[in-house]
Amino acid sequence: MKDKPLILITNDDGVNAKGIKELAECLRELGDLVVFAPDGPRSGMSSALTSLIPITYTLVKEEPGLSIYSCTGTPVDCVKLAVNDIVDRKPDLLVSGINHGGNMAICVHYSGTMGAAIEGCILGIPSIGISLTDYAADADFDECCRLGRKLARRVLKEGLPKGTYLNLNVPSIPHVKDIKVCRQAAGHFINEYMRSENASGDPVYWLTGSFDEAKPIHPENDTLALNDGYASLVPCRIDVTDYDFMQKLQSMIKE
Amino acid sequence: MKDKPLILITNDDGVNAKGIKELAECLRELGDLVVFAPDGPRSGMSSALTSLIPITYTLVKEEPGLSIYSCTGTPVDCVKLAVNDIVDRKPDLLVSGINHGGNMAICVHYSGTMGAAIEGCILGIPSIGISLTDYAADADFDECCRLGRKLARRVLKEGLPKGTYLNLNVPSIPHVKDIKVCRQAAGHFINEYMRSENASGDPVYWLTGSFDEAKPIHPENDTLALNDGYASLVPCRIDVTDYDFMQKLQSMIKE
Repeated sequence: MKDKPLILITNDDGVNAKGIKELAECLRELGDLVVFAPDGPRSGMSSALTSLIPITYTLVKEEPGLSIYSCTGTPVDCVKLAVNDIVDRKPDLLVSGINHGGNMAICVHYSGTMGAAIEGCILGIPSIGISLTDYAADADFDECCRLGRKLARRVLKEGLPKGTYLNLNVPSIPHVKDIKVCRQAAGHFINEYMRSENASGDPVYWLTGSFDEAKPIHPENDTLALNDGYASLVPCRIDVTDYDFMQKLQSMIKE
Repeated sequence: MKDKPLILITNDDGVNAKGIKELAECLRELGDLVVFAPDGPRSGMSSALTSLIPITYTLVKEEPGLSIYSCTGTPVDCVKLAVNDIVDRKPDLLVSGINHGGNMAICVHYSGTMGAAIEGCILGIPSIGISLTDYAADADFDECCRLGRKLARRVLKEGLPKGTYLNLNVPSIPHVKDIKVCRQAAGHFINEYMRSENASGDPVYWLTGSFDEAKPIHPENDTLALNDGYASLVPCRIDVTDYDFMQKLQSMIKE
């Protein structure tokens, strides 16, 4: 008899966040789950690694079909340590999330949720990051779980091309139309700091800002799909080489 | 009279590292420099952001054509805060490095050096990350500076396509042949943790590992160029969308 699929779950909001608990609950029927996640919030950790200090983990819960671990590291540390030290075979699927807050557009670069998905992909595991456009601790993940499970089931069945991972963002609305395959929106954040001061009266800077989307907005952009009530799904590549520019760059440096 | 070019310099080894000092020294003749870098090591910080606590900075040194700031944040925080709060116009060039240690192949995803270059690119600044394949604090940066300055001069003159940044890696050898434009090598790290224990006898895990390059090795790979005595230069894209897979993914989720 074939083993059940092995699914590795992590996130960047920490093992106690509502998003990862609901994710594990909704993927339960698809396979054996190993939840291996940070012991607290690691938002905006991107693909950060812990190399200057050691990391460790503890087993939080174990029952048939579900093990939950809490780890002192970043989301990428969690994926690496789980694959190196916990699972006895390569997981069939990695799902990171559900993130409290959207990771559309260029946020794929900052997101710890997506950092974990990138790491899974690097390690040869079909990997998905899932985010809900709602930062609230008690956000409603129902629609997100429905669509995330649908996608996870598909990826378990069909796999993904080597070097490609998925970025699913779900709008925080009662009825999401469907999943729409999109491209990553371009743009950048502006007015990124709120100046304040510490108890000694010295200036300190809090990260804030708003997204300034590059114009013209492409009709297949993820931000546009989300605004239209769709869940956006962007397939992303580990290989970030700009192949179109290679030849011109070679001439440029030869001049 | 046209202003001199404004060059923003940062890194992930911290403002006191030899690599950033030598970089600033060698770029001095190309423009006015603002060095805005972390106050200590931030290796492996990728594009991590500081959002849960505030950050701050101090002016370390100021002389005509050179200002040096030390910042409590990550490399990406440094780029953001410098652009939002320090410079009075958009820098003409961002150079991140020179990193003590290579950032070839998939290390572009983990590297704080490259995180800063990605951020510069997102903010519309022609951006280059430079790394030397030597972790030593007193590494010899001469060849790296020579090639880095050559490239910086080129990029100042010609610019870069919107959304494209450069990843320059220089081998730690006395005479580097030349800069070769490459693609990012594929592969992943293996045996990534050394198990040890803390003072209480509990297990802890130190990040280590070796790079297992995917076979066959492509002749235009950056790791191969470095092994052959060239500096590798990979043009990279902010937009990580896998355009080739979009249509197939759309059918896959419709089934």
